[in-house]
Amino acid sequence: MQTGRFVDLIHKKKEGKPLERQEIRNMVSRYAAGEIPDYQMSAMLMAICFQGMDDEELTALTLAMRDSGDTADLSGIPGIKVDKHSTGGVGDKTTLIVGPLVAACGVPVAKMSGRGLGFTGGTLDKLESIPGFRIDLTEEEFFRAVRSAGISVIGQTRNLAPADKKLYALRDVTGTVESIPLIASSIMSKKLAAGSDKILLDVTTGSGAFIKDLEQSRELARRMVAIGKGAGRETAAMLTSMEEPLGNAVGNTLEVIEAIETLRAGGPEDLREVCLALAGMMLSLGKEGISYEEGRKLAEETLDSGAAYRKFVEMVEGQGGDSAYIEDPDMFQRAACKRELTVREEGYISRMDTERIGIAAGILGAGRETKESVIDYSAGIIMKKKIGDRVRCGDVMAVLYSSSEEKLERAEQCMQNSYTVSDLRPEPLKLVVDIIR
Amino acid sequence: MQTGRFVDLIHKKKEGKPLERQEIRNMVSRYAAGEIPDYQMSAMLMAICFQGMDDEELTALTLAMRDSGDTADLSGIPGIKVDKHSTGGVGDKTTLIVGPLVAACGVPVAKMSGRGLGFTGGTLDKLESIPGFRIDLTEEEFFRAVRSAGISVIGQTRNLAPADKKLYALRDVTGTVESIPLIASSIMSKKLAAGSDKILLDVTTGSGAFIKDLEQSRELARRMVAIGKGAGRETAAMLTSMEEPLGNAVGNTLEVIEAIETLRAGGPEDLREVCLALAGMMLSLGKEGISYEEGRKLAEETLDSGAAYRKFVEMVEGQGGDSAYIEDPDMFQRAACKRELTVREEGYISRMDTERIGIAAGILGAGRETKESVIDYSAGIIMKKKIGDRVRCGDVMAVLYSSSEEKLERAEQCMQNSYTVSDLRPEPLKLVVDIIR
Repeated sequence: MQTGRFVDLIHKKKEGKPLERQEIRNMVSRYAAGEIPDYQMSAMLMAICFQGMDDEELTALTLAMRDSGDTADLSGIPGIKVDKHSTGGVGDKTTLIVGPLVAACGVPVAKMSGRGLGFTGGTLDKLESIPGFRIDLTEEEFFRAVRSAGISVIGQTRNLAPADKKLYALRDVTGTVESIPLIASSIMSKKLAAGSDKILLDVTTGSGAFIKDLEQSRELARRMVAIGKGAGRETAAMLTSMEEPLGNAVGNTLEVIEAIETLRAGGPEDLREVCLALAGMMLSLGKEGISYEEGRKLAEETLDSGAAYRKFVEMVEGQGGDSAYIEDPDMFQRAACKRELTVREEGYISRMDTERIGIAAGILGAGRETKESVIDYSAGIIMKKKIGDRVRCGDVMAVLYSSSEEKLERAEQCMQNSYTVSDLRPEPLKLVVDIIR
Repeated sequence: MQTGRFVDLIHKKKEGKPLERQEIRNMVSRYAAGEIPDYQMSAMLMAICFQGMDDEELTALTLAMRDSGDTADLSGIPGIKVDKHSTGGVGDKTTLIVGPLVAACGVPVAKMSGRGLGFTGGTLDKLESIPGFRIDLTEEEFFRAVRSAGISVIGQTRNLAPADKKLYALRDVTGTVESIPLIASSIMSKKLAAGSDKILLDVTTGSGAFIKDLEQSRELARRMVAIGKGAGRETAAMLTSMEEPLGNAVGNTLEVIEAIETLRAGGPEDLREVCLALAGMMLSLGKEGISYEEGRKLAEETLDSGAAYRKFVEMVEGQGGDSAYIEDPDMFQRAACKRELTVREEGYISRMDTERIGIAAGILGAGRETKESVIDYSAGIIMKKKIGDRVRCGDVMAVLYSSSEEKLERAEQCMQNSYTVSDLRPEPLKLVVDIIR
């Protein structure tokens, strides 16, 4: 077990002393090179879970992980490129709406997106549910698409932050995923490598978010903004509610259809509100001399004018998708089987276990349990009632869609107790909980 | 990285929840069998460093480690076998005196001892500095020696607590050695496997002990006594001071000579005191109806009668040692070079950095830096002044012995600042700080 003196650095962190920038850089590069064994790094990670890291340490860790691989160079695209990243949620289709919306306002969107895993969906899967849509553009095609349409959303092409990937795999099996500083640096290392000029973080909070506690979510937002600052990259965070699914649709095709409705100035009110807020913030970051309030107003006008919808159609066509489906969403294939879930009590919907709803959507076929799973694009859930709604016995709470009765059965079981009915009308949910910049 | 669900157990400990007995047993046996990878175990160990373990968890961990290998069966030896274990110190030669002393009082001593590592010495090395002394008796010879002479001290023959050995190697390189519960279970797993009926723990505290803080030492003693109780093995602990070397001699031959002087009812007062206390406690454990005070009195009478000295000679002869050296310690080979260390101030010796003195003895050749190092038995230090002594400029503080001037030079440098001279006379040291049972 010859290991240099990395054990001294573990001791230092264990005793609660901050690590030097150079110590952190060496740690990451030596770990990525296989010179520090997993058994030492996992002890270090656990010590970090308990002792935390200050903003300086965190910035050093994030930059070291960013520098472990490629970084994208978007300087060939004119304008201020603003990246938006969501920490994930159930029914979160904001990128499909906010992307075309800000592009229609003149802020270029050059986005590398991710796939869904676990109980949350991924933007790439939603886009791929549009027949013909290609997420695997070459870099050249990607740049050309952004320059002509002002927007392109593709999968990750380069080897971004491989040290983060290696560390995450270790954290996953050593109980060290749940650590605000480690989560913050993992997200930011990839965002910084992705090459945008500015970053907007949509930090979800509540029963359908990875981090359910509000104060923890706020701390995550605060730490990520501090890393952005430390790295010289302007970063803002919006804390948004994930106490229930965002909008009514959960599942790939169902969410695309809901996004189309919203881009046509319809759609559920909560989804529209969150999208306008996120777009407003992206516009204030991406355009000189525009405040958040002005950005939000511009976004609302642009959405209602139909320009955002037209931009979405342009993007779909630019990436090979069949825009006939966008113009007429009835063309999308529907699930073979469906089942209505009815309410058995009377009162107000006061709480939802949103993670459970996300898991049920996964059972129906909308998500993947492992990286190899195949997604059933038409599977999912349409929520008919949301928090604050008055319900009577027999009312339809949600409609489940899947390819088989057996999956409907399992998902229905999973959905049991996924919501609470109370006598008292709950306080209305605040959708945008806080803005941190 | 297929690892079962051990990650759930890491989470449980990380969140501060106690682990079940069966979970701990599975953890130890699966780790010993190589079914749990080091990178998961090191994360668990770090979580234990922060969250601790309660007495029930600790007993389960200790028994699981004991049961991972052989356990010695001493039932063939009549009488109550009491094992004494020291957590280590500088100049700690108590086993050489206390062993023959309690054996002379009729309590059988069947001891498997360890070697020194780091800045503390080991009993086996001291015994081997007596020409001809064999520590590698067969089990049959060992049993015969205890039955005839009432005492035998040998090296570990069986494969005791191999899970502890594997865990300790991992702790050593992952910054997880310093944890009171992990230290307590490591020591006790080996003591419980060694097969004695009762256990006396000499827990050293102060600048020359592994654990220097008094409250931490007390906690270690308390936890080990609780493990003994949980395992159904009567266990007592004596907290003894290691704020300065015990006695005046540090180094193998030098310590043997000092032990002989003490067994002849001479020797340094502090060494005699601690030995009588330890022997008194062992007698009260090993003989029915005898209190600690009565045991101490019996020990003092036996020491002063010369019976303990005669028992030591009998033991040395029984294990092949040349007792002519015991009868005439001038026969021992002396070091080729020596150097006097003088005091440069006037006042009272008020403090010693005892670990530093231990390290200096190691530099002189008395200890081993790695398991493969060869010991120079004649090397070491004789302290001429101790805490509380009045000194003048030019007084001899200590005499260093070694095989070369170069080592004397390095050791002298190491000894710089190893003691403090003050104007005020310090409070006398309390040798036996506490008894826990």
